[in-house]
Amino acid sequence: MDILFSNAQIIGRGNVFLAVSGETISYIGSERPPGRFDRTVDCRSGLLLPGLYNCHTHAAMTLLRGYGEDMPLGRWLEERIYPAEEKLTPEAVYTGSMWAVAEMLKNGIVSFSDMYMFCDETARAVAETGIKANLSRAVLSFDPDEDMKKSERFLESKRLFENYNNAAGGRIKIDMSLHAEYTNTKNSARFMAERAAEFGTRMHIHMSETESEHIECKKRHGVTPARFFADNGVFDVPATAAHCVWVEEEDMDIMRRYGVTAAHNPASNLKLGSGVMPFTAMHNKGVPVALGTDGAASNNTLDIMKEMYLAAILHKGIERNPANVKADLLLKAACETGALSQGRTDCGRLESGCRADVILIDLDTPNNIPYYDLSYAAVYSADSSNVLLTMSDGKILYENGCFTTIDIEKLKYDMRFACARFFEEK
Amino acid sequence: MDILFSNAQIIGRGNVFLAVSGETISYIGSERPPGRFDRTVDCRSGLLLPGLYNCHTHAAMTLLRGYGEDMPLGRWLEERIYPAEEKLTPEAVYTGSMWAVAEMLKNGIVSFSDMYMFCDETARAVAETGIKANLSRAVLSFDPDEDMKKSERFLESKRLFENYNNAAGGRIKIDMSLHAEYTNTKNSARFMAERAAEFGTRMHIHMSETESEHIECKKRHGVTPARFFADNGVFDVPATAAHCVWVEEEDMDIMRRYGVTAAHNPASNLKLGSGVMPFTAMHNKGVPVALGTDGAASNNTLDIMKEMYLAAILHKGIERNPANVKADLLLKAACETGALSQGRTDCGRLESGCRADVILIDLDTPNNIPYYDLSYAAVYSADSSNVLLTMSDGKILYENGCFTTIDIEKLKYDMRFACARFFEEK
Repeated sequence: MDILFSNAQIIGRGNVFLAVSGETISYIGSERPPGRFDRTVDCRSGLLLPGLYNCHTHAAMTLLRGYGEDMPLGRWLEERIYPAEEKLTPEAVYTGSMWAVAEMLKNGIVSFSDMYMFCDETARAVAETGIKANLSRAVLSFDPDEDMKKSERFLESKRLFENYNNAAGGRIKIDMSLHAEYTNTKNSARFMAERAAEFGTRMHIHMSETESEHIECKKRHGVTPARFFADNGVFDVPATAAHCVWVEEEDMDIMRRYGVTAAHNPASNLKLGSGVMPFTAMHNKGVPVALGTDGAASNNTLDIMKEMYLAAILHKGIERNPANVKADLLLKAACETGALSQGRTDCGRLESGCRADVILIDLDTPNNIPYYDLSYAAVYSADSSNVLLTMSDGKILYENGCFTTIDIEKLKYDMRFACARFFEEK
Repeated sequence: MDILFSNAQIIGRGNVFLAVSGETISYIGSERPPGRFDRTVDCRSGLLLPGLYNCHTHAAMTLLRGYGEDMPLGRWLEERIYPAEEKLTPEAVYTGSMWAVAEMLKNGIVSFSDMYMFCDETARAVAETGIKANLSRAVLSFDPDEDMKKSERFLESKRLFENYNNAAGGRIKIDMSLHAEYTNTKNSARFMAERAAEFGTRMHIHMSETESEHIECKKRHGVTPARFFADNGVFDVPATAAHCVWVEEEDMDIMRRYGVTAAHNPASNLKLGSGVMPFTAMHNKGVPVALGTDGAASNNTLDIMKEMYLAAILHKGIERNPANVKADLLLKAACETGALSQGRTDCGRLESGCRADVILIDLDTPNNIPYYDLSYAAVYSADSSNVLLTMSDGKILYENGCFTTIDIEKLKYDMRFACARFFEEK
């Protein structure tokens, strides 16, 4: 389908027309392009942004949104999350993943990086809905002599890679994953790094989320988690490290040198009491920073516009400088850096020739009027409720409250059914 | 008008009917009350909360939303805000205040505490729209020998009190205000405190917002701002102190002893690089904490649901304890403590006999499903876009995108006209 966005605004370009031919952006300019379009979307002076990237989440954890709150981290995990996850079924994970996709599309997110269980079900949700995703099954290994070739989690990762990588027109990618340093050994780290290199794929890990995890690693290995991963080859492939709250100066140097993307999850890090990632220091070091929501159980929403705003004000406040962490930096993190971290080089930018991943933001609202600058409006005033339309690969997946690929009322019923088992136990 | 909310949920009460007779809540219970109602609102299992209180703002600064961003505080004030405020007219302040009221009603806010200029115009906006407000004109005085009886700002405060206090059916209250310690003297502080006591009204001040302000006060007077205000009688009347970012332990003792409400503005304090108020320490000391947005220029929205969420996660993160600053504490701050800080003892609670200040939150949405507990859903999952209806004093002022007392399209036109002068200069 060929679609024309008319009467739109783009940051740095002013008032424009944006044309979509099939799956790509074919034209951006101030003149109406020639040719016929299947549809014209009148943006009514709304703002077009590249689709947003959620670079660290556990999508199906929408099932556990609000299931345990205001609890110490250990009790939250041991008494609430782990027992609940024991009860998850493939069907529940499909439903939870679908619900997450619906929430993300409504919030202008066109792609997510996931790390969870029953990944076939999440792949099915991605294939059906038109969103993009980098999926991974995290490997855990506690025995330094484990024969990793027989690791169930590795075999699952390998099978997922063979079955789904570049499936759904390239929308699905399969990453390798090590859950974290404290849940792995040098042996498992090195093995998975070698497999990621062999498969030509990426690595998705948790790193230095909590202070104790960071300190324990130094006690155990004499080095920080970043150094541990680098020393064991994990950063020899493109890698995304989620959280990075406790990274030290040398860790940032390592991340810059290897081009490791930090997936920054400000809401989750605050809500779990983990702390605040040193954003400005990492940016100044040249570490690529993308944004993530983490799972809905620790957020509680899947909303990258919220994370952009939160990161912008949080670091200004903590670093005590309102000129730090500027709006443009957050927009780049949410779009371009996010896309690159997933190995999607033709995404994350509104440029002719790029994939048509476009969202439309309504600026004609109580919270956005007046706006003197589009970047500032996007980060400081707008919120996800202002997203009018979400397009991925040239297809409109969400528009004005309606989903084009999701039967939301049926899904709502399934979601209630899937969650009933947790209600009973609470 | 008599209105019945049916099929509603209330925190701690489960499924209920809530009846409104005239301006008050006449019944809450699980049985449908007898009698005839002018209207029944089917809440479709939505959540009823008390209307939210915005306890520190400068409403008309909606005009300057996004006007200066990502700048150091000094330059922001000197180059952007102060010159812009020089150009404000009464008509612009009326328009900006109306716009602020529209945004607040949409976000479930039923009352605000304001400190700004051309207060007659804000009073007019309040009277016309049905919202409630405590308005004040902040006094500044730099000459220790100033004859305060002739202070223009004091005379304006006095005139406002005489003309508007308890006007619009008690919806408007006029507070006395000292802008801050660093913009006043012992003489002006003592004088205004005496007037507030004489008028039987409250005091609204800025206090310890920035570190430099706090330190300079100690250099100047040998005591903290809180001690300065207490020593000069300012806390002998009910007082609201905005910000309190840099309060010390003894300051908290003073605030508790005098019952001074801290108006906590987490978004503005972060965005301006001021820091983070010590929420848990203040709460543990027994200081009443309410919430505020500050002006839209430093936020950039007027959204107490956002401030609730932000406060909940921010303090968990900074204090490194996810069990701190629980959801119920934020709901109390946003409703009951806010109402009390404005001297509105029959507001801020959903109880029979209280003023009918009620908001309806849609929980049947992508961001709120599932919910296992109403308080957690209200604070961690819901956002202001889920507010379906805002009622103040028994009148529905906002419902499903529509305002009953505001011509929003005309106001939008006026807002653009009022802001045009700033566009030209930027």
